[in-house]
Amino acid sequence: MADVCIFVVDDDFLIAQSVEDALADGGFLTATANNGSDGLALMDKRGPECRALVTDVNLGDKVTGWDVARAARMKFPYLPVVYVTADSSHEWTAHGVPESILITKPFAPAQVVSAVAQLLNRESNDHDA
Amino acid sequence: MADVCIFVVDDDFLIAQSVEDALADGGFLTATANNGSDGLALMDKRGPECRALVTDVNLGDKVTGWDVARAARMKFPYLPVVYVTADSSHEWTAHGVPESILITKPFAPAQVVSAVAQLLNRESNDHDA
Amino acid sequence: MADVCIFVVDDDFLIAQSVEDALADGGFLTATANNGSDGLALMDKRGPECRALVTDVNLGDKVTGWDVARAARMKFPYLPVVYVTADSSHEWTAHGVPESILITKPFAPAQVVSAVAQLLNRESNDHDA
Amino acid sequence: MADVCIFVVDDDFLIAQSVEDALADGGFLTATANNGSDGLALMDKRGPECRALVTDVNLGDKVTGWDVARAARMKFPYLPVVYVTADSSHEWTAHGVPESILITKPFAPAQVVSAVAQLLNRESNDHDA
Amino acid sequence: MADVCIFVVDDDFLIAQSVEDALADGGFLTATANNGSDGLALMDKRGPECRALVTDVNLGDKVTGWDVARAARMKFPYLPVVYVTADSSHEWTAHGVPESILITKPFAPAQVVSAVAQLLNRESNDHDA
Amino acid sequence: MADVCIFVVDDDFLIAQSVEDALADGGFLTATANNGSDGLALMDKRGPECRALVTDVNLGDKVTGWDVARAARMKFPYLPVVYVTADSSHEWTAHGVPESILITKPFAPAQVVSAVAQLLNRESNDHDA
Repeated sequence: MADVCIFVVDDDFLIAQSVEDALADGGFLTATANNGSDGLALMDKRGPECRALVTDVNLGDKVTGWDVARAARMKFPYLPVVYVTADSSHEWTAHGVPESILITKPFAPAQVVSAVAQLLNRESNDHDA
Repeated sequence: MADVCIFVVDDDFLIAQSVEDALADGGFLTATANNGSDGLALMDKRGPECRALVTDVNLGDKVTGWDVARAARMKFPYLPVVYVTADSSHEWTAHGVPESILITKPFAPAQVVSAVAQLLNRESNDHDA
Repeated sequence: MADVCIFVVDDDFLIAQSVEDALADGGFLTATANNGSDGLALMDKRGPECRALVTDVNLGDKVTGWDVARAARMKFPYLPVVYVTADSSHEWTAHGVPESILITKPFAPAQVVSAVAQLLNRESNDHDA
Repeated sequence: MADVCIFVVDDDFLIAQSVEDALADGGFLTATANNGSDGLALMDKRGPECRALVTDVNLGDKVTGWDVARAARMKFPYLPVVYVTADSSHEWTAHGVPESILITKPFAPAQVVSAVAQLLNRESNDHDA
Repeated sequence: MADVCIFVVDDDFLIAQSVEDALADGGFLTATANNGSDGLALMDKRGPECRALVTDVNLGDKVTGWDVARAARMKFPYLPVVYVTADSSHEWTAHGVPESILITKPFAPAQVVSAVAQLLNRESNDHDA
Repeated sequence: MADVCIFVVDDDFLIAQSVEDALADGGFLTATANNGSDGLALMDKRGPECRALVTDVNLGDKVTGWDVARAARMKFPYLPVVYVTADSSHEWTAHGVPESILITKPFAPAQVVSAVAQLLNRESNDHDA
């Protein structure tokens, strides 16, 4: 069976690792960037390979997770998007993209896997034709 | 019974009129602006009075409906948002706000009333506390 | 075509009238009680005739809308329930019944019709077998 | 503003008329057939003009509403479908199409308008790109 | 604690194995058939034991996954259904059953577990009474 | 990464253990009580630490899971609630709280993790502001 790759963008290496491990346990591959600019570059390079985006909101540089997701959706209009954040959840209703899920830190790894699976499954129903 | 006011932002007077009439038939009041800049000003002035936003996407000047909705949500994080558009629906997944509804032109007036009512009702369930 | 009857329980005659008018415009019949005790008696008497309940929360006596809805669901487990309230929406997550809609006053009549229709339509899909 | 046309297929003239009236009140145009075979022919002829299908299930001849909806979806994969039925709702989970709404008779006209509007609005969000 | 059994119908032994393993990791038992005819026979024999169906669409013989699911729903009207498919997702809106989930290959095992759990949990809320 | 704690209330030690193990596998911590009174006391003591409640309905004493959940929601209005039950699912529509999930026994552990994750993720989107 071919593989399903998920973009992970997080500047906190421990959280990135924990998300990668949880997704790997669920049978997903991951492609990770550790800041927003690298996230955008990674998407340019490997865009069509990956099927969803999990991004932290505060990425330590000028490019936020809100920016990464919007740029991703301009290229891949139905890419499932999951945001994880400690402090920025109040900005989601203004800066998030539609049909995305926001997970508040602290979170358990199963929440990320569940959110990615739920959006991928919903995506199949709604847009594959 | 007090009144429920809805923001309407549309640069096409006929469509604005048709939306206002449909909302009035449903028992809503409306406050209308005919371009994006006036829409932002109207929201500054009468923001807390109104309970939802219905906005065209292409508003004829630099300020689009995407901008109006994002600005509105920065002030009122849970304001229900309904977009109407003929040509820009493909941009919704990247430029829309979460928990919004997009209606494609041509549309019947009942669609606008139904979308506003659905978001207002859902809003009550989820956020009033 | 046979008729579809909706229970309305509200101690404010003006609001009860406005809800009845809106439902009548949508093609529904209504059976109204003006306090909680009468609401319970009405349901005993005409229960199987009616297909949904619209109830105010604060009903002016000891029996609240929360009580009326819970009693109604004990008899009719899938009866659609719509609450309307000015002050008690913060209690909904603890005292409301599942699969109900809460509408905050002030509201436009179209919101009640939309809520009732949405729950009746959902009910058809899920429970008729 | 251009018009939005809805297919109505019903062998009961009174119900067809009541559905047409309710949709007209909501601002929709209608194109009606009074049995399943005519429904299929109508869709062949005017398919791209119409944006949703409201069909009775039992249509008095061999072609049922289940057949009409399936044939419609083969041509227009995302056409919103609303079934109305007195006796066949128990068959919906096996014979209905995904993302459809089933309304049980007797119903109030507002239920049809609400179901059509809800599916059209959802469709805009999910598939226009 | 008693066991929860899931039907798996897939003519690709590797994928069937991968689905079985993922479901077993989630705590489910499985009963597997490797073509459509065997799937129908299995359901006749062990129907009431199993609580959901995961079926490939193209099963290598005349009986497709669309057929298996429809036959299953005729016997068990609320059986949760998950389709997995590489090439046939465009047929889902016409040939799928309501309240089903379609997963596009390639998929990660966690997607199947998530889809089955989501439908089983939703089913409990809506139909057990 | 900080931890996410889930309340578990069940008078059956084997089921409580199985739920705790499944949640631990998903990366959650648990705080468990084995009857309704202890459940209420546990919530008083450790309330703000925990982010969701998984409760059996029949808890062997006067305090049922319906009571525990209602008491929990009075203190924490948006606490995600998952009920598990063998015999009481028909009471959920009258006695459950809104936005809860009911899981019928027998269930697989993955169903509990999926239900908790789904409600936590939804909660983030809807209420954090």
